[in-house]
Amino acid sequence: MAQKPASSAQGNPTRTQNLAIWAANLKYADIPPHVVQKTKDFFLDWLGCTIAGRNHPAISAIARFAITMGPSNGKSELVDGALGFKTSPAFASLVNGASSHVVEQDDLHNRSIMHPATVVYPAALAVAQEIDATGEEFIAACVVGYEVGCRVGEYLGKSHYERFHTTATGGVIGVAAATAHLLKLDAEQTLSAIGTAGTQAAGLWQFLVDATHSKQVHTGKACFDGIFAAYSARDGLLGAADILEGSRAMGVALVPGTTKPEAIDQNLGSDWAVLGSSFKWHASCRHTHPSVDALLSLMEKNGVAFEDIESVVTRTYQAALNVLGLSGEGETVHQSKFSMGFVLAVAAKKGQAMITDFTEEDLKDLTLREFQRRVTMEYDAEIDSKFPQSWQGTVIVTTKSGQVFHETAEFAKGDPELPLTKEEIERKVHALATYGGFTNTSRVNDLIQRGWSLENETNLTGFVF
Amino acid sequence: MAQKPASSAQGNPTRTQNLAIWAANLKYADIPPHVVQKTKDFFLDWLGCTIAGRNHPAISAIARFAITMGPSNGKSELVDGALGFKTSPAFASLVNGASSHVVEQDDLHNRSIMHPATVVYPAALAVAQEIDATGEEFIAACVVGYEVGCRVGEYLGKSHYERFHTTATGGVIGVAAATAHLLKLDAEQTLSAIGTAGTQAAGLWQFLVDATHSKQVHTGKACFDGIFAAYSARDGLLGAADILEGSRAMGVALVPGTTKPEAIDQNLGSDWAVLGSSFKWHASCRHTHPSVDALLSLMEKNGVAFEDIESVVTRTYQAALNVLGLSGEGETVHQSKFSMGFVLAVAAKKGQAMITDFTEEDLKDLTLREFQRRVTMEYDAEIDSKFPQSWQGTVIVTTKSGQVFHETAEFAKGDPELPLTKEEIERKVHALATYGGFTNTSRVNDLIQRGWSLENETNLTGFVF
Repeated sequence: MAQKPASSAQGNPTRTQNLAIWAANLKYADIPPHVVQKTKDFFLDWLGCTIAGRNHPAISAIARFAITMGPSNGKSELVDGALGFKTSPAFASLVNGASSHVVEQDDLHNRSIMHPATVVYPAALAVAQEIDATGEEFIAACVVGYEVGCRVGEYLGKSHYERFHTTATGGVIGVAAATAHLLKLDAEQTLSAIGTAGTQAAGLWQFLVDATHSKQVHTGKACFDGIFAAYSARDGLLGAADILEGSRAMGVALVPGTTKPEAIDQNLGSDWAVLGSSFKWHASCRHTHPSVDALLSLMEKNGVAFEDIESVVTRTYQAALNVLGLSGEGETVHQSKFSMGFVLAVAAKKGQAMITDFTEEDLKDLTLREFQRRVTMEYDAEIDSKFPQSWQGTVIVTTKSGQVFHETAEFAKGDPELPLTKEEIERKVHALATYGGFTNTSRVNDLIQRGWSLENETNLTGFVF
Repeated sequence: MAQKPASSAQGNPTRTQNLAIWAANLKYADIPPHVVQKTKDFFLDWLGCTIAGRNHPAISAIARFAITMGPSNGKSELVDGALGFKTSPAFASLVNGASSHVVEQDDLHNRSIMHPATVVYPAALAVAQEIDATGEEFIAACVVGYEVGCRVGEYLGKSHYERFHTTATGGVIGVAAATAHLLKLDAEQTLSAIGTAGTQAAGLWQFLVDATHSKQVHTGKACFDGIFAAYSARDGLLGAADILEGSRAMGVALVPGTTKPEAIDQNLGSDWAVLGSSFKWHASCRHTHPSVDALLSLMEKNGVAFEDIESVVTRTYQAALNVLGLSGEGETVHQSKFSMGFVLAVAAKKGQAMITDFTEEDLKDLTLREFQRRVTMEYDAEIDSKFPQSWQGTVIVTTKSGQVFHETAEFAKGDPELPLTKEEIERKVHALATYGGFTNTSRVNDLIQRGWSLENETNLTGFVF
């Protein structure tokens, strides 16, 4: 080994080193069955998201880059079979990772405020295809990717998230760890991969201001960059050992507020990140979900119809106000999913906010636009104090007849406490494929069935629509 | 055009937009001859640095990644001919950009505290080879790359540099602009390229703490990522329009102190970044150079020998104290170039601090180690107030016989005010090639001669040792 382990002044391992040691040593057999099951659930959820996003212009541009700059004779596949080429893992994951973050339907790890699936699965799938890994090896690598990525995201915390897209900055480290696990790197090499990933961590929220395409760049590049980190670590490139807590590391440079150091390595092997992640049931920004759930519940409980509602006040946490305040009224379909007012209007009118409920026509629907203007957001200190451990929302509805109703959603549908059923996951995957313009239902069913028995697969080739 | 230009509330163009418009419209004919000449000077300087760095383990690992993940049938060349393959621009520049930042001999743009050559030339060269650009087109693109990259670096400023490797964070934007110019993108596409580059900006100093390999990752990846930004902008990917000054942009997220907004677009076309860049004459960290020059001058003027010196106090600016304080006594050759004490010891003993003057043997030289411990650094408020416009250094030498001498270097050798001659550049390129183990002197001479008439070249193929 070229690199000495990082250690504190007392010679004890650093937290990051503990994490690397754990990641390098995790075996499939160590993973409890319900963690394996949840990993498969999120894999299928991710697969659906990936095909759903394929027609976005950002994905066309990124695929064009992969074709121009990458090889066309690799073993790693694009989930969108219509693209018709196989390439190296770095490029396949670049495209798949970008595509899976288009429709805002990928999972969300609550405590870290990041979307692990959209970076962990595309990278691990592409690398697994390259090296002929088994289903068990793939699952173990994904569990590692979730664990490392989400722990880093939680360490970086809320103040980091106010400035950076944690899915990218924590995600690139999760990708590096997942890739390192597939490549069977030892703990020191894994630590190097984490270090090289962390010094590439990037991703700003500025794109929300003008509805540009960086969100997909962030996830695709997190895959590429994390794979770079792990492969180069295998080949002798040394990464900074203490990239999280060191004196010139991520905590110092990328976190304006406080970090949460204990998140890095406490309860490894008992508190699983996969179990702390949530499905997105609604198609809008996750910060709107508690309010959507509360509003739908309030309307059902009290027999309130769309037309009855005079105004809605949603009480929420600061991070939601920051993100949802950036997109204005929502000039594009994408932006509209970041407008609390528009999302609540859609949910109230249609009784749901699924991916097919946000269209160009809806943007021009004056009843939605008028409702939107009667929604206001308010900061709620108690709700904020619980975030991001708990993503709550309260809505206060005043009806045209002057009645006032309150409702609080303690959990959003899809949260760890309220997960989707197998049947709901299948419905969601089908809806996502339909949205992506893929109409071969039996092919979707085949892929779903393969996903349910992922641990029995001898290789990962063929997850292509 | 899919994207509307960013504009302020008054509808005026933003500074970043002004910069993009200027970059997109610059013609070779607009560039004054002395700017062209300096661009060629730095190109040759860069070429030498690239071959000098080729044997570093980080370069082997990064080249291995390029071979594994990239195509082997591209048109872009590796400066190190021994690697024996041609690939796509993104991968060729990844390797060349990493290699040119190994030996700490590449240029330094004083006001932005960044090294533009090590990112601009490898990217522009690789893209020029891919698209069969002429020497004139290449030079114009490099001038654009310097201008945009260094202006962003100066905008980000000193407090950014304390946390981030500006060569990477400003550099990726310079690469995007240079590539955009070669691809003949219009101003709006160039603005998109700048936006996508900026949201990928990364690079932390943590690697200095344990002498790991991130410095080369930063420059190689800045090339890759900037090329990605420009190619994807060409193909329709929209980047955030105001990635520098926007409410969720680089200034807010990556600058703990104050930015310098006017640096973005003032005096475009009259104050050329290429003319503000310095050659590195000594082989050590640039922050040691003013002190080395002052010490050598003091010793010569006063007839002081290495053995006569009891102690040295160097008075310097804060950024130097920050960077030079990280590497301890210098356990590796690379680290030793970041130790003010060791560098001054080498210079005092050998009368120079060239690339061949830092060896494994020197690390074990007890006379150097003993001298090193008698060097102290002190903060100098006046010198700090002038930095980074001016990189000054004062040394105070006390001799064993009790004499005290002072000397201040107002400029370092290689500064814009004290540039290298053509002959000195050629000597330096030969020395760098020798250091890189390339012994075919006539081949080096051929490449140098080609570099001197770069504007007459019909294509950029063949800059290979």
